[in-house]
Amino acid sequence: MNHSIIRYIICRVLEFQAIFLLLPTLVGVIYREEACLSYLITAAVCFFVGFVGKRRKPESNVFYAREGFVTVSLCWIVLSVTGAVPFVLSGEIPSFTNALFETISGLTTTGSSILSDVEALSHCNLFWRSFTHWIGGMGVLVLVMAVLPLAGGYNMYLMRAESPGPSVGKLVPRVRHTARILYGIYMVMTIILMILLLFTGMDLFEASTHAFGTAGTGGFGVLNSSLGSYPLSAQAIITVFMILFGINFNVYYLLLIRKPKDALRYEEMRYYLLIIVAAVLLITWNVRGMFPSVWEALHHAAFQVGSIITTTGFATTDFNLWPAFSKTILVLLMFVGACAGSTGGGIKVSRIVILLKSIKNEISHLVHPKRVKQTYFEHHVLSKEVRKGVQVFLVAYLMIFSLSVLLISLCELDMTTNFTAVAATLNNIGPGLNMVGPTANFDVFSAPAKWVLIFDMLAGRLEIFPMLVLLAPSTWTRG
Amino acid sequence: MNHSIIRYIICRVLEFQAIFLLLPTLVGVIYREEACLSYLITAAVCFFVGFVGKRRKPESNVFYAREGFVTVSLCWIVLSVTGAVPFVLSGEIPSFTNALFETISGLTTTGSSILSDVEALSHCNLFWRSFTHWIGGMGVLVLVMAVLPLAGGYNMYLMRAESPGPSVGKLVPRVRHTARILYGIYMVMTIILMILLLFTGMDLFEASTHAFGTAGTGGFGVLNSSLGSYPLSAQAIITVFMILFGINFNVYYLLLIRKPKDALRYEEMRYYLLIIVAAVLLITWNVRGMFPSVWEALHHAAFQVGSIITTTGFATTDFNLWPAFSKTILVLLMFVGACAGSTGGGIKVSRIVILLKSIKNEISHLVHPKRVKQTYFEHHVLSKEVRKGVQVFLVAYLMIFSLSVLLISLCELDMTTNFTAVAATLNNIGPGLNMVGPTANFDVFSAPAKWVLIFDMLAGRLEIFPMLVLLAPSTWTRG
Repeated sequence: MNHSIIRYIICRVLEFQAIFLLLPTLVGVIYREEACLSYLITAAVCFFVGFVGKRRKPESNVFYAREGFVTVSLCWIVLSVTGAVPFVLSGEIPSFTNALFETISGLTTTGSSILSDVEALSHCNLFWRSFTHWIGGMGVLVLVMAVLPLAGGYNMYLMRAESPGPSVGKLVPRVRHTARILYGIYMVMTIILMILLLFTGMDLFEASTHAFGTAGTGGFGVLNSSLGSYPLSAQAIITVFMILFGINFNVYYLLLIRKPKDALRYEEMRYYLLIIVAAVLLITWNVRGMFPSVWEALHHAAFQVGSIITTTGFATTDFNLWPAFSKTILVLLMFVGACAGSTGGGIKVSRIVILLKSIKNEISHLVHPKRVKQTYFEHHVLSKEVRKGVQVFLVAYLMIFSLSVLLISLCELDMTTNFTAVAATLNNIGPGLNMVGPTANFDVFSAPAKWVLIFDMLAGRLEIFPMLVLLAPSTWTRG
Repeated sequence: MNHSIIRYIICRVLEFQAIFLLLPTLVGVIYREEACLSYLITAAVCFFVGFVGKRRKPESNVFYAREGFVTVSLCWIVLSVTGAVPFVLSGEIPSFTNALFETISGLTTTGSSILSDVEALSHCNLFWRSFTHWIGGMGVLVLVMAVLPLAGGYNMYLMRAESPGPSVGKLVPRVRHTARILYGIYMVMTIILMILLLFTGMDLFEASTHAFGTAGTGGFGVLNSSLGSYPLSAQAIITVFMILFGINFNVYYLLLIRKPKDALRYEEMRYYLLIIVAAVLLITWNVRGMFPSVWEALHHAAFQVGSIITTTGFATTDFNLWPAFSKTILVLLMFVGACAGSTGGGIKVSRIVILLKSIKNEISHLVHPKRVKQTYFEHHVLSKEVRKGVQVFLVAYLMIFSLSVLLISLCELDMTTNFTAVAATLNNIGPGLNMVGPTANFDVFSAPAKWVLIFDMLAGRLEIFPMLVLLAPSTWTRG
């Protein structure tokens, strides 16, 4: 293990964190809030440690997949811990476990909260909560790569460890340029959304926080009613943008380089949109009696489907009160998740499609054992490596899921609460059902249970293996 | 597709069914119950149809995996439908859907019931319910193979399609002899259990029905309180035998041919026993306050763990009232299931072990990509075929699970009920939680939901692929 290079990258990330923390400081200054001081202090400490730590250059450039996984996991842990400090310092979330839960929920774009009264927070804390969504959505190391000229061939390993999906493709031959293009698209789309939200009557603060929450598919709001008290126009705009941010960013790149046909041929996107349409229609039919008109039912169904499948987690209405059929659809969508290469979480549509194709392939193999049939995905033959990777991912995912549900069941809450709490955190969604439903919060859990969910949020965002590699004893042995 | 041979085997199975049906007829005669007539009539019809149908010999002996899957699926459907007829004819379960649910629940060794008052049934119906467990436990086609000198090399395909587990091993070179040894062990163990139960004060009727229910890991009882009102000694004996019937029968064969060392080296059995011990200890600790003494808590914990992991489904106490932690352990055990090559259902311990090993292998591959590491199971290198088969099984299992939960959620029951109802039927256990808990029954579901659960029971018992092959359009095309 090349410790020196890992230390070096962590220090550079700390410098970035210092810059990130200046934004809520600025917000605090504008709103004349004392809490801005805690941000300034934390930023200064981060900058100092990063600046001093990075001065000793790494002794070697050896960097493999192992280093990639460990670096990404540790960077995310460092960002989470330093990001939680201002909440504690400002006294608005005095418990460190709670502050860490909230920060990791932000960075991993989960949006699960331990706060019962969001509106009691100062503006700078609210801004930071939402801004962490935006940072975590596309990934910190992707940003570092886009900005800094990191030497060596280790960009690809970092990208693979941080970006979601069964296989990470580069848009252009150089990883650094790919990272820049991704962040460019991300930033432009966020700004467009922010401007549109300003037109619906939101002020700059609301428009920016909601744009961050939507772009990162996070889900932290600034009001206790989430998006329930905003006009329908704002809800509709956010519905569309949630779904857009759940699409593989490669599609936007293809549109950008004027290859609309290739963009439309994207298999994962087609299945993703198909699932959304089917789910919206089924839920609309199921809840039509609960709203004054079918159109309103459609509006809320579309919002909630978009919010859950993209793992954003905003709410316009308390879907915990919806009928069991609709709730079951939403729970299933929690697992499906968004497209690979988007800012959304979950298992990812591409993985689900690959898994379904493997069943079809197996049946055809059982029926006609001598006929060799290739499985295609995205118009290419699916490699054994990817297929195996997806299947092992599913297994690891289920094991962590089961173990988490078992551990948090020690809190003696009901099974639906436990099950959906893990589903909501491991898939980076936000709200679950029953006692963690859209109008409730995660403070019902004990501190140990919160740590389990904290692990799940990180494992979910980094797609499990980076965290498992970090914890595996074999990572830390020589060889 | 070789239709003629499928027809021929189905007709032979119908003859067997006629013989099976004579047993409850005899019970009805002894207890002087009118219902015995319905069994006699059904038996006569089955025999007639089977006898006439088998007279035209199959035109060809061509028999591959495809024919194996289709034959097994169709035989089970034929057995289920004919087995349900006496319930309807006797007027004790007038609805055909309910009668079919009960029969399939019996044959697949599930033990889920739609009856609220079991004690209202006549003896011959109660006997038939329990006897279907015994028939389905080891498998009908295994019995047919053991008894009849079926020509051709298709025995292996039938065995593979009907026997549970990731890979079916023959004990001895000839499948027919293997089938005989398996049934021999099965029968001897059932008789020993029956004799032991007679010593605890049960009469012959109770001892035989409970022995059938235990041997097949089924779970139908003859009292509304399941096993709750029997003496502790009977409960303890059944605890031990449930666990014994959940062990791979290869272990008993090894003991029989005096290879105790090889038997003890059986990896799957070791994990199975380890899981049981761990679960019993955790639950005992968790429920100790609910019982007068720790020993009583241990007794009930051991009974319930044995009942659930072997997918039997007997109950001595209403575990729906246990704390969430214990219930979560039981729900997880529902999925684990028993050993391959036993009469139990579920995913099977061997599959879980293989899946866990694949995660370990993947992490080691990520950490040291150049080091090639073999995965061992049962002291042999695990083949890619088996590993792939297990992973695809898991995927197909999850898809059927999710779709079933979605479909039955249209009944608008709570999510824990829906989730555990599917878990209980797809894993062939019996009771679930909440509205399908050990003191409740499955009549809360609508007829369409019952059909979904009927499919799940069959798919669970035959380990999914035979049913999927039966339904796949490609099975029925030429080629």
